[in-house]
Order: sequence, then structure tokens, then C-alpha cells
Amino acid sequence: MEGVDYLAEERKKAEFDVESMKVVWAGSQHALEVSDRISKLVANDPAFRKDDRTMLSRKELFKNTLRKAVYAWKRIVELRLSEEEASRLRFYVDEPAFTDLHWGMFVPAIKGQGTDEQQQKWLPLAYKMQIIGCYAQTELGHGSNVQGLETTATFDPRTDEFVIHSPTLTSSKWWPGGLGKVSTHAVVYARLITDGKDHGVHGFIVQLRSLEDHTPLPGITVGDIGMKFGNGAYNTMDNGLLRFDHVRIPRNQMLMRVSQVTREGKYKQSNVPRQLVYGTMVYVRQTIVVDASSALSKAVCIATRYSAVRRQFGSQNGGPETQVIDYKTQQSRLFPLLASAYAFRFVGEWLKWLYTDVTQRLQANDFSTLPEAHACTAGLKSLTTSATADGIEECRKLCGGHGYLCSSGLPELFAVYVPACTYEGDNIVLLLQVARFLMKTVSQLGTGKQPVGTIAYMGRIEHLMQCRCNVKQAEDWLNCDQVMEAFEARAARMSVSCARNLSKYANPEEGFAELSADLVEAAVAHCQLIVVSKFIDKLQQDIPGEGVKRQLEVLCGIYYLYLLHKHQGDFLATSYLNPKQAALANDQLRALYSQVRPNAIALVDAFNYTDHFLGSILGRYDGNVYPKLYEAAWKDPLNETVVPDGYNEYMRPLLKQQLHSARL
Amino acid sequence: MEGVDYLAEERKKAEFDVESMKVVWAGSQHALEVSDRISKLVANDPAFRKDDRTMLSRKELFKNTLRKAVYAWKRIVELRLSEEEASRLRFYVDEPAFTDLHWGMFVPAIKGQGTDEQQQKWLPLAYKMQIIGCYAQTELGHGSNVQGLETTATFDPRTDEFVIHSPTLTSSKWWPGGLGKVSTHAVVYARLITDGKDHGVHGFIVQLRSLEDHTPLPGITVGDIGMKFGNGAYNTMDNGLLRFDHVRIPRNQMLMRVSQVTREGKYKQSNVPRQLVYGTMVYVRQTIVVDASSALSKAVCIATRYSAVRRQFGSQNGGPETQVIDYKTQQSRLFPLLASAYAFRFVGEWLKWLYTDVTQRLQANDFSTLPEAHACTAGLKSLTTSATADGIEECRKLCGGHGYLCSSGLPELFAVYVPACTYEGDNIVLLLQVARFLMKTVSQLGTGKQPVGTIAYMGRIEHLMQCRCNVKQAEDWLNCDQVMEAFEARAARMSVSCARNLSKYANPEEGFAELSADLVEAAVAHCQLIVVSKFIDKLQQDIPGEGVKRQLEVLCGIYYLYLLHKHQGDFLATSYLNPKQAALANDQLRALYSQVRPNAIALVDAFNYTDHFLGSILGRYDGNVYPKLYEAAWKDPLNETVVPDGYNEYMRPLLKQQLHSARL
Repeated sequence: MEGVDYLAEERKKAEFDVESMKVVWAGSQHALEVSDRISKLVANDPAFRKDDRTMLSRKELFKNTLRKAVYAWKRIVELRLSEEEASRLRFYVDEPAFTDLHWGMFVPAIKGQGTDEQQQKWLPLAYKMQIIGCYAQTELGHGSNVQGLETTATFDPRTDEFVIHSPTLTSSKWWPGGLGKVSTHAVVYARLITDGKDHGVHGFIVQLRSLEDHTPLPGITVGDIGMKFGNGAYNTMDNGLLRFDHVRIPRNQMLMRVSQVTREGKYKQSNVPRQLVYGTMVYVRQTIVVDASSALSKAVCIATRYSAVRRQFGSQNGGPETQVIDYKTQQSRLFPLLASAYAFRFVGEWLKWLYTDVTQRLQANDFSTLPEAHACTAGLKSLTTSATADGIEECRKLCGGHGYLCSSGLPELFAVYVPACTYEGDNIVLLLQVARFLMKTVSQLGTGKQPVGTIAYMGRIEHLMQCRCNVKQAEDWLNCDQVMEAFEARAARMSVSCARNLSKYANPEEGFAELSADLVEAAVAHCQLIVVSKFIDKLQQDIPGEGVKRQLEVLCGIYYLYLLHKHQGDFLATSYLNPKQAALANDQLRALYSQVRPNAIALVDAFNYTDHFLGSILGRYDGNVYPKLYEAAWKDPLNETVVPDGYNEYMRPLLKQQLHSARL
Repeated sequence: MEGVDYLAEERKKAEFDVESMKVVWAGSQHALEVSDRISKLVANDPAFRKDDRTMLSRKELFKNTLRKAVYAWKRIVELRLSEEEASRLRFYVDEPAFTDLHWGMFVPAIKGQGTDEQQQKWLPLAYKMQIIGCYAQTELGHGSNVQGLETTATFDPRTDEFVIHSPTLTSSKWWPGGLGKVSTHAVVYARLITDGKDHGVHGFIVQLRSLEDHTPLPGITVGDIGMKFGNGAYNTMDNGLLRFDHVRIPRNQMLMRVSQVTREGKYKQSNVPRQLVYGTMVYVRQTIVVDASSALSKAVCIATRYSAVRRQFGSQNGGPETQVIDYKTQQSRLFPLLASAYAFRFVGEWLKWLYTDVTQRLQANDFSTLPEAHACTAGLKSLTTSATADGIEECRKLCGGHGYLCSSGLPELFAVYVPACTYEGDNIVLLLQVARFLMKTVSQLGTGKQPVGTIAYMGRIEHLMQCRCNVKQAEDWLNCDQVMEAFEARAARMSVSCARNLSKYANPEEGFAELSADLVEAAVAHCQLIVVSKFIDKLQQDIPGEGVKRQLEVLCGIYYLYLLHKHQGDFLATSYLNPKQAALANDQLRALYSQVRPNAIALVDAFNYTDHFLGSILGRYDGNVYPKLYEAAWKDPLNETVVPDGYNEYMRPLLKQQLHSARL
């Protein structure tokens, strides 16, 4: 029945003020107000409907995305939305589109790498969307290793132009979003060559298509790279390929803020510090961590609500079956993900502070915290995106068979999310960067150089190498100091152990390669420590709202005890814990599951997601799952006719045993 | 270039006879011959083309599958293929279709549960495909708990008929493959009610559609349940919904081999042992384990070949970059999956023996080994399908960005595989069944009842509770007796620990529920032990072919040391190992990676998969990846025109700043 809240009983169980928790999740009262208003604006506008997305063919899907993206822009202009509101609107439209790259990569690249003059020329065009740009970096044969790019930009002093060229097949630009069918311009990364000398990879603004009729300019081959994982998902986006056949651009279209080529073809560096690029990197990674918490929280919201709706087994005397959320096996898989969503939210919030801090220091020419900030953001990007991708798939499995239906929203959520594990740095490659930083830090211990920021704990290495866990009963695991010591000791010992093993190799690079799998594990331990410590820090703050802080304490406990149990091998192998203490942690974890259970629905309600944004029948706010699943099934194109297309050609001859005369 | 083998250098490195390994993988020379012949027959027939599958709309896709399935049947008849060959042909066509359910569920249900008379009536029709059947068990609100099904079959003694009815929305049949659009008949599971008494769930043969024009019969509502996860994948299948409005069928369409309803409406049990159903269950699960090894080996084959083709970083003096397969981080993720594929193959082979053994015992009315066989197959189904689903996704990630392209084959392989974690018993529910069996076994220790089969090790519980690992150097981990003791001690200790914790609860069921997450871990430990022991058993056999056995020893070592490292927490918590010994295991594991490296390509070649079956450009036998990726991209429907559909309606007004007049 419409209008009935099937989860009302669950909502009554909550032991905290949900509205206050919404503020905590959103980050501030202001952020909540904006998100709430914009998400409802999108949800109530039929033009943004998305429940048909997984049934559309590629061409229909792409055209529909063009329509939505342009319509969204029209609304943004009409409603005179602020930059913050516009960005929220695009977020709640929830459909990858060329605008993501235009606003998220093309504009920032010009702002970050262009001279003032270049910015004055190009940004007004981009801001009004009179040109649409993308970010053409990766190539068919070159992803992670930017220095291996093959596209060339050769300066021709006779004409004062660069000649952009794709010398090989593997140098074809490949993957850039918005490139395939939409972008009129691109920031193209290519090897700068002047006077026969290769100066490495630089960015160039290149026009790709006519602004009159959208046809590719001479010398340019451009197209879509084809279908990607999942229904709907990233197939709304025209990830593209691009080849240049000696395409000429004026010299002033090289992005020259950091390096320049003069009229004579001389290569020069400006006095703008190259480290500026790290500021952007911290910013981009911060948004990725926040996106991880959004994606994971969507999946958790769906799985939690459906786990309360769904009943299996346990019927007594013909009564209703047990809600699956009451099973410990379900709780032990679901609640750590709920806790992770909150944990990633708070670490994302902290990264916003870090970005401000780094930016201020860069402006004061203080580069001292950069290596730590770089390692920390690399590690957090890797940790949160991997956990989120796995977590979404786990949530899908937690919904049983129905999680496999597109109408559950989970298949598309997974497919659209997983690229985050690969883009902006492959997650394993990033962990190896963290590991390098850890090994360097260890090697500098005792030199008087004090580790700062998230690695400061290494300054207490002597204590951390020898301390032993003091836990005597399960509740001792609620002591945050105890927990911090445990995670610090584990991370420090794993790093030191790797450093010792490395020192056995004559060639350090060879050792690093040989031990890289262990180094990755040490990096993970370090990154988990950061997330745990930022969650614990959050709890030190004043958090208003009845019962809100208490719920966050429970979630924090679940987060770190879940990690402790999952990685108990690390804690035991480094001899910080004994098996008895590990078992007590597990007992405490189980006790916390019982505490979170009555609050579970309210804790996902606090995300404040509309049914439109969730895009899941299983995750409906009102819990009215089964009638809506039934209704949705009939909308499949296959149900347009009772007897399917193909019956007369293929099935009838089979059933009538007339196959010999059938044309197959 | 066509015809060039870009992996030739890799193939030359192999230290074993690949042809002999092909026999090992296939199971026998005969099996290899059949697989080789039939897979090539499919690959060379353009009618079975599948590289366009992910680009088709739902209706096109479904119609195309109808065509292929019927064409496959035509070829089977024309070529007079044997049952084995026909089944292989359907396997290599590699597209879920109604025929899977017709042959795999409908026919076996009638054979297993029908009387001789019923078999004589229905099987000839089914064998000739004059009727097409499916298996209608699960309902919208009822999956795992078969006893909770709501559909009723009420006997009407006046007319000698059953009245099949769907009393609620949640009783709608939901998910059965082949039901939505194709099947003319179904085996329907419904609660049998005679004279007001509910006799529980039984099977009934029900005609759904007219054999004349395929329209649903009166009282029957049938349709497709809509889009499922992934492009192509299971969307080729018409998983269906079905509702009955008092549909009448003759009494003789209840499957009456085990229970009967007489003309007078009396409910009777025959003397056919109910345990017979377990024989079928062992058979079905055995095929699922073999399928797991097939799916995982496909993913591993793709990821291994592409890891040899792909180069990233490490270029020295402008030379080529390093093949990614040479990175230890890549090896430590890829090679355990390669080893797992072989491990699952051998445990699947052993399950074939178990099925024969169980069948023979059942025929002799010996039910003594059934509980053990039931627990063992439940656990192996769960273990192998979970590891395979995760493993496919890991292989996809191991291919970097390009693994996200449908042309890599991996997205579809994942999407089509994951349901195996849910169907035929949810994987967690199955592990809890294993745990129940383990707890029962522990409780019976000392009663004189000797544990048999895969649980026999529990008979040595005293030794296993107190023994300590003898490993002193890394190579000691190559000693299979040592390894068996380690895995047995871990499994036994985890079970005993659970049993002790359970005994603290006054109500055992409550304790089982509370500790279920721990019980699942104990069950996993037991199941991993089974897989390890069957791999080690395999190595005791005579295995011909130069170097073949040696390679299998290396893979076996990788399999168990990978598990040992991944679960070192279990081994350390149960105090069988000390941290030093765990570290030595890791050292040995790393050494084995180096040994398998030169043989990696040959080890995946031994699967003998055609490029058609693999369906992956990244996994091409000849390694000619990049030109073929480039070629494939142009086939996307979006590339049919240079300027995309929607440019004039949406983009041009945007670029020309004429949005105000645009119709969006």
C-alpha cells in the first residue's frame, strides 16, 4: 500500500536524535540544508528520472545523458545556483557525464597550469560552456606511468606552432571521459620536444572539433572506446580515443605556468614551485575519499533497510520468519560496513582540513609537510576506494538473490564505483608509494628528524616496539588509548620488520621489488591507523544531539574491532597481542553489534538520501519492497509482448519438430 | 600484425610439457579430445559469435539467444552428438539460456522425483524438446527457506485435480530461468494440502503455455523479472515471475516417486528413501565446483596473458618498460588465483568420485556417509564459488583500466558468475550447515563414533590439540605432512574453541545464533583443509609428462601457503605456529612465485581455451592486444556517426548559448 511506512517500527527503536545525526553526516547545518533542498529538487523533477537507465541501449542512454546534463545546466542558470549548489545538483543527478570532466579536470587544469593570460582567454569560454573540455592524459599503452606517454608536441620555430602527433598505435589517447563524442577541446598531455630535445610530459590546449558543426578538425581521429562494465553505469559517458596526425596549435596553447617555450624555441622553467601540483592532488584525493563514503553509505542504506524488510527462516508456530538483520552473520558483515561509511566520512572531513593546511603552507613556500600529506592522501585514497568497492559488492550479496536485479540499484552502483580503484592512481601502486615513505621514515629514525602529522607515532618507536597489550577483559577494548597503541604498534612493527628485511638486500631497489607484497601490507596497516585515529579524534569533539555521540562511539568501536579481528594475524605476528586478547576483542565486537542493531535503520536514515538518489527498490524509505519489485518487472522491454519476438522464427519450429526447415 | 605470436617468447620459457598438462586439466585424454573438438567446432561457427553481446539491447540479446540455443540443438541433432558432446557444446556456446534449466533442472527433477509412469509420459517429450520446462521453486518473498514457500496445491477430490494457487504477492514464483518467456511447462513447488491438512512442499508438473500459440493458459500470469547485473551476462536468460489463479491440473501431475496422494485424497509415503534427494544434491554441487574452476581459470588466463603483454614503469635508458607480470605485487595477487583454479579442478574431480561413492551406498541403503558428504559438498560449493567470484574481480583489477572495458571479457564473466554465490544455497547459510556438522562431530568425540571421510582428522583430536609446528626453515613448508598437520590443527582447534564457547550458553540454539560468525570461520578452515588435502592427494598419483608434476607441486605449495598467510591469524591464534614460522611460510611463498613465473603462460595455455570461449581481447592467445582493442572500439553503436545523435537538440543550443529556446 502506498503511504504506509513499513519500517516505522524500526524507526521507533532508535536511541538517538536522527536530525542531529543528519547534521553530523552532512558536515554542518548549512551543508545539510543545501543537500536536502537540492536533492529534493532533483528527485521531484521528472526530467531527472533514472529508473529506466539500465534498460536503455547504448545510444539511447548516451543521448538521454546529453539531455540531462544540458537540462541540469539550464536549471543551474535559471535558478541562479551558487557554485556549491550547482555541484550538489550534479551530484544528485547521479549520472556520469562529460560535465564531470569539464568542471572537474579541464577547468582546474587551466586554472592550475595556465598563465594568467591563458586563464583570461579560456576560462570565460569554459565557464559559460561555449567550449566543452576534457582531460586527455592516459594512452592505449600507458596508464599509471605518466612519464611513459608517447604523444609528442614538437615545436616548429618557423611557424611558432606545436605539432601534436601520435607516433604509434599505443600512443592513442584512451579513456578520457567526455572525449569520445562531446568535447570541443582537450587538455592534451604530450612529450614536449624542442630542437630535438625531449623535455618530458607537458599539457596543451587543443581544439578537437569544429564549433560550427562539431565535426573533428583535420588530422584528428576521435571516437568512443566502447561498452564498459555494467548496465547504465559509466556507459552514459563517452570515454574516448584520440589520435593526432601532425596537428598544429599556436605556441600559446601550451600551459605555461610552470614551464615555457619561448618564440625561439627555448625551454624555460618559471619560478612557480612545481610542488603546487601536490596541492591539487590532495584536493582531488580528498574528494575521492568523500565520494567513497557516499557510495558505501548508499549501498549500506539499501542493504540495511532490505535486511529489516526481508525475513527468512526461524518461523515459530507459523508466525512470521526472522528479519535477516537479526542474524549475527548478517550483522557481522553489514555493521562493519555501516561503521566504515561513517569512518570514511570523518576521515574525508579531516582531509578537507589537511588540504587547507597544505595550501596555506605552499603559499608560504613551506614544503616540509608535503611528503607526509602526499603519502597520507595516496594511502587513504587506496584504502577507502578498495574497501568501498568490496563493500558495495558485499551489500549486494547481503540482499540475497534480489540484489542481482538492476532494480535493486546495487549492480549499477558497483559498476559505476569500481573504476575509483584504478583511476587517479592504481590502488596498489599508491600503497607502494606509501610504503616508500614509511621505509624512508624508518631509515631516518634516530637522525633527529622528527616524523610529523599522521606518521608522528614513529617518533615513539622504542616504546611501540616493546609495549604489550594490557587488555584483560572484553570491555578494555573500549579504551581508545589502548586501541591507538595497538594500531600504532602493529603499523610500526610491520614497517620496521620490512625495513629489516630490506636491509638484507645489497641492492635496495631489488629488495623493494622482492618484498613489495609485504610492503603493501605494512602500508595498509599505516592507513588503517589513520582512519581509526581520525574517528577517535572526531569523538573528542563536542557533538550535540541526544544519544548521537554514543552511537558514534559504538560505530567507532565496531570499525576498529572489525579491523583488529580481520587482521588479527598482523597483531599476533608482531606479538603485541596474545590469542586470548584477540578473542576478547571479538567478544566485544559481538556485543557492539547488539547495541547498533536497534539503531541501524535510523543510522542509515541519517544519510538523508532521497529514493531517487538511492535508485533502489530494496532500499526504499518506506520498505514497500515486494509490490514495487513486482511492478518494476513489468516495465522490462521483454514484457512488451506476451509471446516473445523470436517465437515464430526459432521456438515454434523447435516445439513443432520442424527444425529442418527453419532458418537459423 | 595478424599471425604473429606476441607471447612466443613466454611460451618458450615453459619447463614442462604443456600437452600433458592439458590432459591433467581436462581429466583424461578422452575428455581433452572431446573438449578440444567441440570447442573448436563452436569457435569456428559464426552463428555462435558472441563479441557483440554486450552491445545488444535486452530484446535483441534475448532473441539472439533464442536463435543460438535452437541452432545449437539443430547442430546437436544433425551431428548426432552424444550426451557428453551435446553438454560440452552447450558449455562452449557460453551463453545462459532456457536450455540450461530444461536439461539441468526440469529433466532431472522428473527423473528423480517422478514415478516410472510419469517418466515414461514426460521424458520423451522433454528429450525431443516438444515441451520446454523450467524449475519453479523460489518465490518473491522466499529464497533460501524452501519450507517457507507459500504457493498451494490443494487436492479437489470431486474432480481428482490439484488447484495450484498463489495466495499472496510474495508467493509469486520469482527467478526461475527460462520461465519468463520460453517454458511451456514447469516443475512447480507448492504446499500440498489435502483435506485441509498441509503436507509441506512437493513438486508438480504444470503446463504454463499453449503448445499452439505460446499464450499463457487461463489463470496463469507469467513474465520476465527484468534486467540483471551486467552487460549481456544473465540478461540472455528470461528469469521469470509466475502467478496462479486457481489453476487446475490432474492428480497424476504431482511428482509421486516419494510421496503420493490417492484418488481419495489420502497422503502416503512410498518406501523410496527420502535421502535419494541428497544424491542429486551432491551431483549438482559437484558440477558447481567444476564450473568454479572453469570460470576462475578463464579469468586467470586473461589476466596472466595480459600481464605478460602489458608493460608499465621500469624503463631503463629508454628501453621497454617492465612486463607487469614481473612485479611481485602482481604475482602475489595473480599466482594464488592460478593455483586456486587448479586446486578447484582437482577437488571437483574428487567430488565426481564422491558422487559415485554416495550413489552406490544409497543403492545399498547405506546412509552412513551422507551427513559427511552433505557437509563437505555444501562447504566446497560455498568456498569455491566465493573465491571464484572474488578472484574474477581481482583478475579484472589486475588488468588495470582496460579490464573495465567489456571487450576485456571480465565484466561479463564476473556478472554472469556471481549468482553462483547465492543460488543452490546461499554461501553463508551453507557454511552454517557445515558448522552444525562440525559441532555435532566434536560433541560425539569420545563416544566411540569414528569420524569418517573428510572429517576423519577429528579422530586424532588429542594430538591435533597439542601438537606444535616443527618448521625451522622456509623449505620445511614444502613438507606436505607438515602442511596437513597445520591445516588439520587449525581446523580442529577452531571447531573445538567454538564448541567450548557454545557450551557456555544454556540454550544451544541461542548460542549457535550468537556465535554464528565464528562458526562460519571454523567452517571455512575445515573446507580449506579439504581442498588442500585433495590437491596433495593428487600429487601422490602418477602424473605423466615432463615436468608436469613438478609444476603442480609448485602450484599446490602456492595454494596452501597463500591460505596460510592470508589466515595467519587463525594459525597464530590457535597457537600452532609462532610468528617466526608464519614469516618463513611467507618467504617460501615468495620463492615459489619466482618458480611459477616462467611457466605462467604455459600453465594457462594448458586450459586449452579458444579465443571464442575466452571472449577477451586482453586474453587473446597471440597477445595481439592493442590493435584489436582499437579495432573493437569502432564497433560501438555510438561510433556509427561522427557527430552523435542529440547534438542538434541538446549540445548545439548549449554551445551557441541558445538554451532558453531549447526543448529539453
